[in-house]
Amino acid sequence: MKPLDALGELLDNQVLVRLKNGIEVRGVLKAFDIHINLVLDDAEFDDGDVEKKFKTLFLRGDMILFVS
Amino acid sequence: MKPLDALGELLDNQVLVRLKNGIEVRGVLKAFDIHINLVLDDAEFDDGDVEKKFKTLFLRGDMILFVS
Amino acid sequence: MKPLDALGELLDNQVLVRLKNGIEVRGVLKAFDIHINLVLDDAEFDDGDVEKKFKTLFLRGDMILFVS
Amino acid sequence: MKPLDALGELLDNQVLVRLKNGIEVRGVLKAFDIHINLVLDDAEFDDGDVEKKFKTLFLRGDMILFVS
Amino acid sequence: MKPLDALGELLDNQVLVRLKNGIEVRGVLKAFDIHINLVLDDAEFDDGDVEKKFKTLFLRGDMILFVS
Amino acid sequence: MKPLDALGELLDNQVLVRLKNGIEVRGVLKAFDIHINLVLDDAEFDDGDVEKKFKTLFLRGDMILFVS
Amino acid sequence: MKPLDALGELLDNQVLVRLKNGIEVRGVLKAFDIHINLVLDDAEFDDGDVEKKFKTLFLRGDMILFVS
Repeated sequence: MKPLDALGELLDNQVLVRLKNGIEVRGVLKAFDIHINLVLDDAEFDDGDVEKKFKTLFLRGDMILFVS
Repeated sequence: MKPLDALGELLDNQVLVRLKNGIEVRGVLKAFDIHINLVLDDAEFDDGDVEKKFKTLFLRGDMILFVS
Repeated sequence: MKPLDALGELLDNQVLVRLKNGIEVRGVLKAFDIHINLVLDDAEFDDGDVEKKFKTLFLRGDMILFVS
Repeated sequence: MKPLDALGELLDNQVLVRLKNGIEVRGVLKAFDIHINLVLDDAEFDDGDVEKKFKTLFLRGDMILFVS
Repeated sequence: MKPLDALGELLDNQVLVRLKNGIEVRGVLKAFDIHINLVLDDAEFDDGDVEKKFKTLFLRGDMILFVS
Repeated sequence: MKPLDALGELLDNQVLVRLKNGIEVRGVLKAFDIHINLVLDDAEFDDGDVEKKFKTLFLRGDMILFVS
Repeated sequence: MKPLDALGELLDNQVLVRLKNGIEVRGVLKAFDIHINLVLDDAEFDDGDVEKKFKTLFLRGDMILFVS
């Protein structure tokens, strides 16, 4: 198994994404690529005090620390 | 679906772009590439106190955190 | 021997991963690639005060300092 | 249209370039490449207190945030 | 001679590795690659107050400042 | 014209190089490559209080902000 | 002439290397590559208060600001 296979198994599932700056994003994983660019549906972006919601969110891969 | 396809679906739509430094930019997505370089029309750049407006804005991809 | 061979010998073993920001993650190494992207099972993420547990954790390679 | 096409349309026009550190540079766009390296003629570099002027300025692309 | 040849001559020898953040690691160099990923055996990781020991340590190359 | 052509026109001329950390270097441009690595002859490196002089200076391209 | 040719002319000569964090290293240049990885013999590493000496030092290129 390669690491990207683990992302493949998470497709259409609710995931937690932690960014390098500590911000956490939750949503349904709809797409990923080798740069770890992600698309999340029904995403919740926890920006400290405020939680923002997005129907579809494209996240650039180079700011991602982990996906679970 | 790949993540860039999600950007493709946003073409000619109003998008919100958040930069890695927290700055938010809004505008109509006119173009993107694999580096996530973006072109926004009628862009509003929220620079803390002041909001600046640009008819056409070329944004370098490596400063982008998300697009929605 | 190449460095990635050493990671190969750690597959299915309990490993300690230290991130560049000092955070430590423990878990069973299930996958890795040439970018040092890792997949850990039964991962414990030591985020200062709180220790978070994840059944499966995808860690982006460019934040990793060492694996042991 | 690709993002670099938008830069192409700006050739020989007065542009505003904002760097990642907030510094703004104005000038006539004379050249660009895929790294977003730029050449500006009659460039004004707004370095906080002092504004410096350059007949021709080569700007390395990786410090650029946007061009408009 | 190329720089990597100098690393090759250090194989199976005790080396000192200094990371970009100033941390020093000592151990026996067992493997390296073109990214300067290293494997050290019997590694001592000097983390400020505490010195940690590892039987085998995989160090990601992009945090390394020098090897001697 | 491409941006590197502009550097080519500066060969054997006195140039001002500004680094990303604000340090300025002056000298005669003798060589450059696609990484914007530069060689300056009779270089003056303005390191805050002290100005240092070098007969020949090899500057790594990734620290360069602009050349003029 | 290309910039790396200038490094080639410095082989077997005493050089001064300045790192991006301001640290200076002196030694005899024995090897370099396109990443500007360097090998210095009889290297003196000026770490603020203390000057450390190394018979052979492998320096990773991406921390180097200049060589002279």
